[in-house]
Amino acid sequence: MRDVVILGVGMTHFGKHPELSLKDLARAAAWDAIKDAGISPKDIEYGFAANAIGGVVTGQTMVVGEVVLREVGITGIPIINVENACASGSVAAMEAYYAIKDGRCDMAIALGVEKMYAGDTLLTTTAVAGAGDVELELANGINFPTHWALRAQKRMELIGTTAEEYAMVSVKSHKNAQYNPRAQYQKPLTLEQVLNGRMIADPMTQFMCSGIGDGSAAIILCEKEKAKKYTSKMITLKGFGIATGEYDERRDITFNDIEKRCGEMLYENTGIGPKDIDFAEVHDCFSIAEFMRVEGLGLFEYGEYGHALRTGECEIGGRLPINPSGGLLSKGHPIAATGVAQMCEAVWQLRGECGQRQVEGARTALTHCSGGGIAGDGAVSVASMVQKDY
Amino acid sequence: MRDVVILGVGMTHFGKHPELSLKDLARAAAWDAIKDAGISPKDIEYGFAANAIGGVVTGQTMVVGEVVLREVGITGIPIINVENACASGSVAAMEAYYAIKDGRCDMAIALGVEKMYAGDTLLTTTAVAGAGDVELELANGINFPTHWALRAQKRMELIGTTAEEYAMVSVKSHKNAQYNPRAQYQKPLTLEQVLNGRMIADPMTQFMCSGIGDGSAAIILCEKEKAKKYTSKMITLKGFGIATGEYDERRDITFNDIEKRCGEMLYENTGIGPKDIDFAEVHDCFSIAEFMRVEGLGLFEYGEYGHALRTGECEIGGRLPINPSGGLLSKGHPIAATGVAQMCEAVWQLRGECGQRQVEGARTALTHCSGGGIAGDGAVSVASMVQKDY
Repeated sequence: MRDVVILGVGMTHFGKHPELSLKDLARAAAWDAIKDAGISPKDIEYGFAANAIGGVVTGQTMVVGEVVLREVGITGIPIINVENACASGSVAAMEAYYAIKDGRCDMAIALGVEKMYAGDTLLTTTAVAGAGDVELELANGINFPTHWALRAQKRMELIGTTAEEYAMVSVKSHKNAQYNPRAQYQKPLTLEQVLNGRMIADPMTQFMCSGIGDGSAAIILCEKEKAKKYTSKMITLKGFGIATGEYDERRDITFNDIEKRCGEMLYENTGIGPKDIDFAEVHDCFSIAEFMRVEGLGLFEYGEYGHALRTGECEIGGRLPINPSGGLLSKGHPIAATGVAQMCEAVWQLRGECGQRQVEGARTALTHCSGGGIAGDGAVSVASMVQKDY
Repeated sequence: MRDVVILGVGMTHFGKHPELSLKDLARAAAWDAIKDAGISPKDIEYGFAANAIGGVVTGQTMVVGEVVLREVGITGIPIINVENACASGSVAAMEAYYAIKDGRCDMAIALGVEKMYAGDTLLTTTAVAGAGDVELELANGINFPTHWALRAQKRMELIGTTAEEYAMVSVKSHKNAQYNPRAQYQKPLTLEQVLNGRMIADPMTQFMCSGIGDGSAAIILCEKEKAKKYTSKMITLKGFGIATGEYDERRDITFNDIEKRCGEMLYENTGIGPKDIDFAEVHDCFSIAEFMRVEGLGLFEYGEYGHALRTGECEIGGRLPINPSGGLLSKGHPIAATGVAQMCEAVWQLRGECGQRQVEGARTALTHCSGGGIAGDGAVSVASMVQKDY
């Protein structure tokens, strides 16, 4: 049995960076992770790279990993490009984890990079809508804001969730992000400001939807025995869960079965359960999504997350902080970078390096990304468990 | 030690199919493979799907695997999308192989699908050029035909290879493809016809360049003990080699070091060497490329492939047949489908099902794809070994 640790992490600022290319972004994140790990690029034996819409936005349709990792001298080794929509970065990390755990290599880099902003918002939003089934959904006017708005409305009807509760997710998110220097939106917002924002898809205003941004994140994974050469402070990547949609037309769209199955696999693979987790970074692409992620994963009971928001249970300092980094809503969501960036946050938190957004005494973190949507269900859901060993 | 067998294979006709979508193509190939394996879609535990330019050509930027595999009832299980340019299908097969070998699952599908033809040739050729470094190369007028023409010219100068020898690759390819009902170009061509074709990039005429086509291929991989439930005629996937470019500006562009390193890893991982191989399917995206693949992989000595073409050594019936399927030049090259399609051909040949293009008595096959190109070197090279066990 080989254990896998996260030896180094790196991440750019997330936001609109018209002056930076895919290469520039990836170079910065990869180099940060390499320096943080205390290794040389030539120590890396395997690379997994994630990118989602670079083909449409930048013209770099293929081999993004080979093109960008060359920038930091990572050449010759196997480099595999993966894509699972918003969970692309998570899957890069997962494949790197298995490559080490199963003995294909001892050290690997997982990198996510996305260039969303190229001046043409319609181009970007159309590319993003391609995470659905374009034949089935896009042609019928279903894109992600409308998809999530339908769920939000249904939850209001079934459970009595209020627009204020949806807004509270965004208030919490922006509050946390003000202490994250890499976050796209670092200005706190009041409940009134969130509710009075421009309406995107009722009940979701602009502040309840993740925005368009550029960014990259990278992690260096290493077999634990080998990692002893570099550090004694081990942060272990305990394992993953992954599930795809079942696409049952009659399903309850206020509960995400895909997250439940993903979480069950994660808890079984790692032997760590929802009760053992000190904080979680989950896929709040829209404020309603945060409800369905944390309830689907079993971190909060079904229908209870509104209560948790009102009582502060999911705030930093509460029982189970959700998205202390600011999450997708405020930290930003450069698609394929997000899953890796969540693992960077996990490591910084477990190391105790997060300043005013620190979750005190955190030892165990869950990260979760959900990618795409098909026929009203999630396309893919990926979660990881990260634990401090010292 | 777990062994991995190819339990079933499926492939569409390769060619221009304006009436068929990504879903249609993938459904046909996946269903063929499922039927060939004698399994139910629900027996499949893991999926790896490859697609390269679907985002640009069809708008399906993301989650292609989830969207198309749902068409044959493959849902709920982990589905990971991979992309390594022209080696995308090979990498899907490689990741599926490791997932089984290392115990993540017992049965997996690897699928490659590509829709290249959507009426706008410029859109397609621009998307294909995105397999290079778009900042570095495309902006400077280097696309794949010009890249390979430079190599062809250099080889003529250094080794004395002739335009006739380059043309012989295409003559052999079309000769073999006439017996392949799934091939895009099934009409044999004479040396004169190939040499007198429209000039694309001197010395390469249109018949020395792979064309634009749609297609899909799928294989079902299974752990060997479990496979005994379905068959006694085992075809084993012995292992893979993979390498990325080193990008040495001073390298000899008439020899592919990337293929050499890929081949060495393959031979080491499988314990099978170039002398043990009965035939090979290699990445002849251009006729010059076939020279560099077979010499790089050590199947023929450097500088000797022209001689092999003249003497028929690489023909069906010769010492070491190369591309009995017709290869990319004649069978067609729907980018991400190609690597998987090569493995389909390997299985059909080893089973003795290839009719007039049969390599008699074949027991061991090598498949090889090379994806993309950066700074005058290949971006990634992937090879597999397939062996008959009965």
